[in-house]
Amino acid sequence: MKVTITFPDGSKKQFDSGITAMEIAKSIAEGLARNAFAAKVDDKLIDLSTSITKSCSIRILTWKDKEGIDIFRHSSAHLLAHAVHELFPYAKPTIGPVTEEGFYYDFDHDPFTPQDLEKIEKKMEEIASRKLPIQRMMLTEKQAVELFKDNKYKVEIIKSKDTGEVGKEEITAYKQGDFLDLCRGPHIPNTSLIKAVKLTKLAGAYWRGDQKYKQLQRIYVISFPEKKFLTEHLQRLEEAEKRDHRKLGKELELFMFHEWSPGSPILLPKGTIIYNELLSFLREEYRKRGYQEVITPQLFNKALWETSGHWSHFKQDMFVFNVEEEEFSLKPMNCPSHVLIYKSQLRSYRDLPLRLADFCFLHRNELRGVLGGMTRVRKMSQDDAHVFCTPEQINAEIEKLLDFIRYVYIDVFSFTFHAKLSTRPQEFMGDSKVWDKAEKALEDSLKKTKLPYEIKKGEGAFYGPKIDFDVKDALGRDWQLATIQLDFQMPLRFGAEYEGADGKRHAVVMIHRAILGSLERFLGVMVEHYAGKFPLWLSPVHVKILTVADRHKDYAEQVCKQFFDAGLRVAIDDRSESIPKKVREAQLEQVNYILVVGDQEIKNKTVTVRTRNNEVVGEKKVDELVKALQREVAEKK
Amino acid sequence: MKVTITFPDGSKKQFDSGITAMEIAKSIAEGLARNAFAAKVDDKLIDLSTSITKSCSIRILTWKDKEGIDIFRHSSAHLLAHAVHELFPYAKPTIGPVTEEGFYYDFDHDPFTPQDLEKIEKKMEEIASRKLPIQRMMLTEKQAVELFKDNKYKVEIIKSKDTGEVGKEEITAYKQGDFLDLCRGPHIPNTSLIKAVKLTKLAGAYWRGDQKYKQLQRIYVISFPEKKFLTEHLQRLEEAEKRDHRKLGKELELFMFHEWSPGSPILLPKGTIIYNELLSFLREEYRKRGYQEVITPQLFNKALWETSGHWSHFKQDMFVFNVEEEEFSLKPMNCPSHVLIYKSQLRSYRDLPLRLADFCFLHRNELRGVLGGMTRVRKMSQDDAHVFCTPEQINAEIEKLLDFIRYVYIDVFSFTFHAKLSTRPQEFMGDSKVWDKAEKALEDSLKKTKLPYEIKKGEGAFYGPKIDFDVKDALGRDWQLATIQLDFQMPLRFGAEYEGADGKRHAVVMIHRAILGSLERFLGVMVEHYAGKFPLWLSPVHVKILTVADRHKDYAEQVCKQFFDAGLRVAIDDRSESIPKKVREAQLEQVNYILVVGDQEIKNKTVTVRTRNNEVVGEKKVDELVKALQREVAEKK
Repeated sequence: MKVTITFPDGSKKQFDSGITAMEIAKSIAEGLARNAFAAKVDDKLIDLSTSITKSCSIRILTWKDKEGIDIFRHSSAHLLAHAVHELFPYAKPTIGPVTEEGFYYDFDHDPFTPQDLEKIEKKMEEIASRKLPIQRMMLTEKQAVELFKDNKYKVEIIKSKDTGEVGKEEITAYKQGDFLDLCRGPHIPNTSLIKAVKLTKLAGAYWRGDQKYKQLQRIYVISFPEKKFLTEHLQRLEEAEKRDHRKLGKELELFMFHEWSPGSPILLPKGTIIYNELLSFLREEYRKRGYQEVITPQLFNKALWETSGHWSHFKQDMFVFNVEEEEFSLKPMNCPSHVLIYKSQLRSYRDLPLRLADFCFLHRNELRGVLGGMTRVRKMSQDDAHVFCTPEQINAEIEKLLDFIRYVYIDVFSFTFHAKLSTRPQEFMGDSKVWDKAEKALEDSLKKTKLPYEIKKGEGAFYGPKIDFDVKDALGRDWQLATIQLDFQMPLRFGAEYEGADGKRHAVVMIHRAILGSLERFLGVMVEHYAGKFPLWLSPVHVKILTVADRHKDYAEQVCKQFFDAGLRVAIDDRSESIPKKVREAQLEQVNYILVVGDQEIKNKTVTVRTRNNEVVGEKKVDELVKALQREVAEKK
Repeated sequence: MKVTITFPDGSKKQFDSGITAMEIAKSIAEGLARNAFAAKVDDKLIDLSTSITKSCSIRILTWKDKEGIDIFRHSSAHLLAHAVHELFPYAKPTIGPVTEEGFYYDFDHDPFTPQDLEKIEKKMEEIASRKLPIQRMMLTEKQAVELFKDNKYKVEIIKSKDTGEVGKEEITAYKQGDFLDLCRGPHIPNTSLIKAVKLTKLAGAYWRGDQKYKQLQRIYVISFPEKKFLTEHLQRLEEAEKRDHRKLGKELELFMFHEWSPGSPILLPKGTIIYNELLSFLREEYRKRGYQEVITPQLFNKALWETSGHWSHFKQDMFVFNVEEEEFSLKPMNCPSHVLIYKSQLRSYRDLPLRLADFCFLHRNELRGVLGGMTRVRKMSQDDAHVFCTPEQINAEIEKLLDFIRYVYIDVFSFTFHAKLSTRPQEFMGDSKVWDKAEKALEDSLKKTKLPYEIKKGEGAFYGPKIDFDVKDALGRDWQLATIQLDFQMPLRFGAEYEGADGKRHAVVMIHRAILGSLERFLGVMVEHYAGKFPLWLSPVHVKILTVADRHKDYAEQVCKQFFDAGLRVAIDDRSESIPKKVREAQLEQVNYILVVGDQEIKNKTVTVRTRNNEVVGEKKVDELVKALQREVAEKK
């Protein structure tokens, strides 16, 4: 018997039935097989040792796949439990799930000491090097209870099969050497693939998250299939800590927070410069791209939110209060107010598309406990816009939006990003034919603009499909910033219509979209992306002029005026401090160009230029430098 | 016996004791005497017939003085009561005060008909022409009660002397012909000075404003010492109605209101253009004048308002609500948040002055009933700034502010204005020496800049003296817009200090100031001032290009691009409508320049220009016109 295997690139190949996934991996490439963790067969994850007896599609999972990483981490969790078991036989392992960064495992044991953790780390490395095969076992409930009888937690798991912690149909466990753990799997083929581990944190936790139980010891770990990945990861963490926008934001005097207004950033003068430059940039693009800006109220009667549907879905996230005995709330989003503007006139198909943009403040009633920096706030502005168009215009509008996003992220900010197209969820509003057309419009546009994208099946909002954009920063971290959402729903709720060429009324289509997303969040991301070294056009201080001695002050003023009159942001440091000290301070302030003026410069009508990265540019004519910097600002590089 | 009389210009002259004010007026000029209503002797208002027996300063009051106008109106109120008394002997006059525009009088009588009002108006004119002298009478309470026994309202007034409606020390009445009315006076010398009257409105009212009494008939009247003043007044009213910003704002699509957000203007695209142009203009000035913009939260814990003192004085005007069981409010003003920024660093005298500007939204919980247009709102932005400085810097800062205000109102907007300096009130905070110095600083600066000003003695805020600015619009109406307020108080409440040159800590001085005031209000005033015909730099659409026929569309696009690329706001009207119709519509839209393109213009590379006021400018080369308009925008004329 033969089975036909379809590979990710679409190619097909025949194999004898019963071949294992590992053998298929080897048939592709020895290297792939060496790095393989598990396989995905059709929609199912399997061990590499599993035999394949039906035609199917296959993907060999490695460290390059999100699913591969998760499997690797879960095998590492077994390795942790194994090490703890060998060192502390009375410790009872409970559960050990994967996290964003690595994994943890909760043990019923007295608190571990730092020395214990060191020992565990060493033991994990030692067990890994034993190259133990990891084998799947299928058990009856009786067998399982017998095997785990010393661990009441595992027994509880076995008896409540539907928790998803063990297989639904049958109970499975995985064995490596003489250590056994309950697990749905799959797992990596043997322990030696785990080349580097690091225990990062110890914390208290409760079984089932319930405080009525005894406190467990939660060990957080990160693990990697190559030693250098760990080194790189630690370097990245260190770098991220240095770039933390809360730390840099304070040092660079960009923004501050105050306990009397939690979650509402206070933008200081330098932060406001950046914020306003972003707005100017967007307004310039809006002018070119046919947007019209509006300014809308902050407070609305609940009647608005009842009409839009936010009152039933979003009320707990709004600040709500009474005004003259009626309920009002601070707006958490702009869309319904734009519908009011749309509806203030009779619109014809000739007036469409109508693109309304708004930078007004939005408020969301987040719990104080979850607020943090610029990324979790109560008050923010979005570079929010709503496009009102006919169904026929959707394609063209989406293409324009993709071009806008590409221009901003790639051409201007040099980020990389990829798109996620979320399609019709199980519960959706409206006509499925309209959905099909809209999803096709979104995907066609993505294809046409050649942007990388993936499809998130069933993850669209109930009111329409959407495209979200994950933007990768300089440290390789993903941030979800831009979004494009089609909405067939809100126009119906408000009765927002247009008169078609046929003379009849039709429901208008609404596209919600943000390019930078929340400006506060974007500012935070940018601080970390650039590590505070903003490109010239965004930089709060372009140029600082340092005097060598008091007799150079007049010349400094004169040079300063030239930069100021050219629209550049310039400051003077004429304190009686040494030049090295003044240079160092200007560099810490991240001033882009530091100009020293002394006797020679006065004579030559020049300045001596140095950068914030301490590159010596040398002596430059003032008017030439002014022109060069104006160009640099205009080019946004 | 001689008395020395000091005139307003400071000159002095001796007269025989017992001379009347009227005789003094005649000694100055016959014309002045003819137009004189009353006199002000030292701080007291007197009839012209009063004899002067002590040396004093004197001012003869005419229609040119606010006090003169009020006296004239009050005499007109007596004339109204006299006319009603002759026509309707059973009508009981009650009280008749002066208003902003004229006066009213409440009568206990059945509702008057429109015909009654016409008769009353005629009767007033007839009585005025009788040239009846108006004479003061001094009465005992007994005499007064006897004389007014038929009018229970007047008797009540007589018996409650302290209401201010009659003299405190003695009861006075004024007599003209056989009509007598209680009055403190003074009054004009005779009825014939009243040359024009107009009854403008009839309304119901209650005695003492209390609904438990019978409803009275309130007749509103305006009156003038010359017939042409009435004509001019009526023309102004008509013009004001045409210019009403609520009406024009809607017609020109500048802003709208919605019942779901009362008092919060929604700025439509064209209104937002004007708003943003105002912000850009101010930001340009801020850059030149050393201001730093910040962006502050909308929501603050009551702890902030308790510290600033607003919680006890202003709470009822704020929107207050609970967040996680603590009271928060939407900020009604920016000042305390700027103090938080000031306090976020240790400040040295070298860092001062620090000028923080903010355009964030402010909310005030005004009753829905009093909201109206852009002038009474719940949500607004101010072009608000706070200058933190040392006491020594006050003078220089005030001069800079006066220069700023002069530049904006006179050089840019061509309004006229006058300043009002309000000094220490009876209850004040802080050291009276500091007050004296500050008041002197303000007055010295006003004198130095040669701005017209008056002193409002005792009308300063409890925390410091201030200068308010009344701006006169094209219809001669006064609007209080700009303000400068010194504040010694808030820095103390917050402990906002700086380190002086002496190494010691000192309380900083805070100057609150707004130039345009509320931007919403300013926008409303501007709409009326310009009657919607905004100067080019503020105009939402600079240029509209009209095609003669379809074959001119390409050329129109090409011309459009030239204007667009030059940063001008341009639109095309290529509908298949007649040129006269398209011109008319563009004029109603108040587009500054209307360009017609047809065969001839294509051939000549020109456009034919016409203005919104229908002036025909003629054929112009496109590139020359572009340059001319760029200049016009830059010059803000």
